[in-house]
Amino acid sequence: MQRPVPLARSGFAQFERIATRWADNDVYGHVNNVVHYQWFDTVVNRWMLARELLDLRHGPVIGLVVETRCNYFAALAFPQLIDIGLAVTRIGSTSIVWQLGVFAADADSTAAVGHFVHVTVDAATHRPVPVPDRWREALAALAPPA
Amino acid sequence: MQRPVPLARSGFAQFERIATRWADNDVYGHVNNVVHYQWFDTVVNRWMLARELLDLRHGPVIGLVVETRCNYFAALAFPQLIDIGLAVTRIGSTSIVWQLGVFAADADSTAAVGHFVHVTVDAATHRPVPVPDRWREALAALAPPA
Amino acid sequence: MQRPVPLARSGFAQFERIATRWADNDVYGHVNNVVHYQWFDTVVNRWMLARELLDLRHGPVIGLVVETRCNYFAALAFPQLIDIGLAVTRIGSTSIVWQLGVFAADADSTAAVGHFVHVTVDAATHRPVPVPDRWREALAALAPPA
Amino acid sequence: MQRPVPLARSGFAQFERIATRWADNDVYGHVNNVVHYQWFDTVVNRWMLARELLDLRHGPVIGLVVETRCNYFAALAFPQLIDIGLAVTRIGSTSIVWQLGVFAADADSTAAVGHFVHVTVDAATHRPVPVPDRWREALAALAPPA
Repeated sequence: MQRPVPLARSGFAQFERIATRWADNDVYGHVNNVVHYQWFDTVVNRWMLARELLDLRHGPVIGLVVETRCNYFAALAFPQLIDIGLAVTRIGSTSIVWQLGVFAADADSTAAVGHFVHVTVDAATHRPVPVPDRWREALAALAPPA
Repeated sequence: MQRPVPLARSGFAQFERIATRWADNDVYGHVNNVVHYQWFDTVVNRWMLARELLDLRHGPVIGLVVETRCNYFAALAFPQLIDIGLAVTRIGSTSIVWQLGVFAADADSTAAVGHFVHVTVDAATHRPVPVPDRWREALAALAPPA
Repeated sequence: MQRPVPLARSGFAQFERIATRWADNDVYGHVNNVVHYQWFDTVVNRWMLARELLDLRHGPVIGLVVETRCNYFAALAFPQLIDIGLAVTRIGSTSIVWQLGVFAADADSTAAVGHFVHVTVDAATHRPVPVPDRWREALAALAPPA
Repeated sequence: MQRPVPLARSGFAQFERIATRWADNDVYGHVNNVVHYQWFDTVVNRWMLARELLDLRHGPVIGLVVETRCNYFAALAFPQLIDIGLAVTRIGSTSIVWQLGVFAADADSTAAVGHFVHVTVDAATHRPVPVPDRWREALAALAPPA
């Protein structure tokens, strides 16, 4: 595997703001490695909910997380503000690959880069189902800038 | 003890905005009762840090939490935005009593009211020390509106 | 209100073990005040689930938390083991008052004492309903020792 | 990249027990994908602390997390008990690669497999330093069974 490197803001299609919380810092005084994944869950679901692609209670299709990954390049700390860049790098027949760039609010280079694979499943049976057309249309806006 | 009742925004001196996170909701689909306390820690420390009253690494005085309390009146849920009203209802010789009002961003009545008692202690020994004068002056701005 | 004081193990009817986690410690190197409430949620629900009093998905009645409170007497830290003492100090027509004692595994006096008020509600409508008879019978085992 | 597959208990050198918590479940009623990483932090640090390899406050060397990864194969839910299998698959000059297998307490096949890369750094400067000899000796016990 090639060595992961930080990315620029130009690699992301859209951004969501996150305000850090007291509990994000651990004993070492920086945002703990786990917290980045909480942010990813938050911005991905917020983006989906804002576009009415997801209904947590009654929607027929949900995105099940089957793989997550994160590389960390620089420390962050409460009370910093964070921007998360969103990009969808691949839409398969029943899966979506998200790339998430974590930026300090005043930085142009990622402090961390995350990767998140959703499989679209039937909300009741958890069996894979095709990525809905409405999702494909909306997610096209998150194609990484050329 | 008298029955707790919701409060209006007029009972608070200042407000801090909180964006809910995916993990704030529990199995029942609403913000879990524990999360309100994470928000209180966040807004109180954010307020203190923004005024340079606190230095997490090298400050001589920190606020140790000795009592917390919350009454819950209405359900909240991710991805709602929240306003937390801040008031300091009492400053003793070595203690500060905070009142925190949790409002849905579009509501005028609290969904929850929290209570938080800080004892000011020496950062190294954790022995009580007087509330610093700089803190008293700043905290005066959080006296509840008459 | 009278000044809260630590309690002995003899004040509790039963105990549940909690293993601390890395994330329980905050910047100051001790278990954060919020975490105690996560433990309370865990032991109360674990106790109920072990006795089949609660069914998170299909049960007709759930316990809605309307008030929580905690007083802190001593610091705890990961990787300590914790015992939580459980007592039910009052069962009303539609409410249950829990008292939770937080003990370091090798201590006889509480590091913190929590208080937790459940209102029993219809799982669908969230309207108060009487505490079920099966609950009353089981909860009798948690009456504080005389 | 080859498709990740579940692993057996025989692939791990030692096991640590985790008790799930109420807050581990998310809206969908299962352990949220983020929580596995909290468990990894907990068992890795618990293992290190139990062998006195780490001193959170005064140790000269700490392990900084530079990469994490997890593949999810099966759902877990509070109040299940979990076993985490530990293996160290590589020790470099300044890095350690951990493999973590997440098992339901009664299962022989992983519900998830995690991967965690530590760089050993000077606690004060965060500059990479060689993996201490005491660490190498202790970590040898976590070599994956042949």
